Amino acid sequence: MKRTDLVENIFRKGSFLCVGLDPDVKKLPETIEGSPAQRVLSFNKAIIDATAAYCIAYKPNLAFFESLGAEGIAALEETVKYIREKYPDQFIIADAKRGDIGNTAQLYARTFFETMDFDAVTLAPYMGEDSVMPFLAYNDKWSIILALTSNPSAKDFETTIDTNGTPLYERVIRLSSKWGSPVNTMYVVGATQAESLRDIRKVVPRHFLLVPGVGAQGGSLEDVARHGMIDECGLIVNSSRGIIYASSGPDFAEAAAKAAAALATQMKELLKLA
Amino acid sequence: MKRTDLVENIFRKGSFLCVGLDPDVKKLPETIEGSPAQRVLSFNKAIIDATAAYCIAYKPNLAFFESLGAEGIAALEETVKYIREKYPDQFIIADAKRGDIGNTAQLYARTFFETMDFDAVTLAPYMGEDSVMPFLAYNDKWSIILALTSNPSAKDFETTIDTNGTPLYERVIRLSSKWGSPVNTMYVVGATQAESLRDIRKVVPRHFLLVPGVGAQGGSLEDVARHGMIDECGLIVNSSRGIIYASSGPDFAEAAAKAAAALATQMKELLKLA
Repeated sequence: MKRTDLVENIFRKGSFLCVGLDPDVKKLPETIEGSPAQRVLSFNKAIIDATAAYCIAYKPNLAFFESLGAEGIAALEETVKYIREKYPDQFIIADAKRGDIGNTAQLYARTFFETMDFDAVTLAPYMGEDSVMPFLAYNDKWSIILALTSNPSAKDFETTIDTNGTPLYERVIRLSSKWGSPVNTMYVVGATQAESLRDIRKVVPRHFLLVPGVGAQGGSLEDVARHGMIDECGLIVNSSRGIIYASSGPDFAEAAAKAAAALATQMKELLKLA
Repeated sequence: MKRTDLVENIFRKGSFLCVGLDPDVKKLPETIEGSPAQRVLSFNKAIIDATAAYCIAYKPNLAFFESLGAEGIAALEETVKYIREKYPDQFIIADAKRGDIGNTAQLYARTFFETMDFDAVTLAPYMGEDSVMPFLAYNDKWSIILALTSNPSAKDFETTIDTNGTPLYERVIRLSSKWGSPVNTMYVVGATQAESLRDIRKVVPRHFLLVPGVGAQGGSLEDVARHGMIDECGLIVNSSRGIIYASSGPDFAEAAAKAAAALATQMKELLKLA
């Protein structure tokens, strides 16, 4: 998907919400029947149908599919196809956090951009430029690079200060923003780090940021918008558990719609800041 | 696998060789027939049968299987089963370079240690302790953490010096060596960084190191042994392309055996340094 289309979708729908698909087979409503992989697929389809009006992106989390083996991957492929065919204006993110070099990175790019038709993949930057370039070789596909995450141990390495006084996450953003551009690169910045968003905006004023951690992890949507929004929005805010597990009963899809709609209502208001 | 068994296997076989399984379907010998995933599985079995006498570990690289979708994952599952049943003394490493937190990390651990029966998985440390602990919760399973890799852009972040004068890779090793211990944690150190091995040994004198980059990438086996070997060996040296693509003709398995045997002969000699 092109950046212009993504921006257009956001303002047309009045939402910058991404629904995270983390279907843990141990948490699915009992009313959904079949093999584990079938249950995951049915659950995803119901969640997607219930929330598509309120969001502009979906983010399947690879771990939840891989844990079911080959059948889980088949369910992932079906999920991506389902979104692509029924809701072609949705931006689809593989939350895979891959990071490997050369030949291997090329194969991962082939996996997410050719074998499956994702728009974007999340990447870990530890190994440097070699691990990102093969993904940037695809037109209208996106690399979403981990910068400052929302977990407590982000402090172990991400915020380590180098001899120039620069925290590692900022060095990651500075260097990698030169490998690509705002039309093919985004950054992951946790919502619990909203105040750092202001500093990050000084380094990458145009790039989109993928922001997890609103809701379950305690981040504030309003703070994120106040510190991170730009004229073209520049934000995709993800919610996973707060939406897909809003109810564990037979009304899980309605409850997911309601949770997504509530966030979208807030977002419509916040988009006036753009 | 327990550390004592790994060490015993190394000295009994006189080898610390790991054969990397990177089966790129575009490079497989034409004499192998079937669907892409069937060809990958047949190739792997032939390589494994040809090399098992000369190595103590196999390292399937996840990207090469994932690029074939669900069938590729089925081929990976079959490959792991094949090794486990026919060569139970082999240490099996998932080269996955995963790195995610909490719930997601738990699901990845379940994938590699329960859904499939790997002994170890490679992990990217960017997100810190949260991304490693769920893997360390398994007995006799191993986390192999990226430290100093063999690719040119390792210099982008891995060697960035912090305000204490410590390069990032050393900070990774120092901190993470406290999360686990030498019986469940190893580090990836590229063979092209042989001289850094001496410094790394000061920080982790007992940990095993997984060393890729001998051969195709230009690292020297002798330098690696001289700077990194300890009394219990402490090294697993990987070769992928140099073995599995030693020939692209119908003699690929014999050629792989010969390449693995040549490395094992050198290793037998070098183990006298232990």
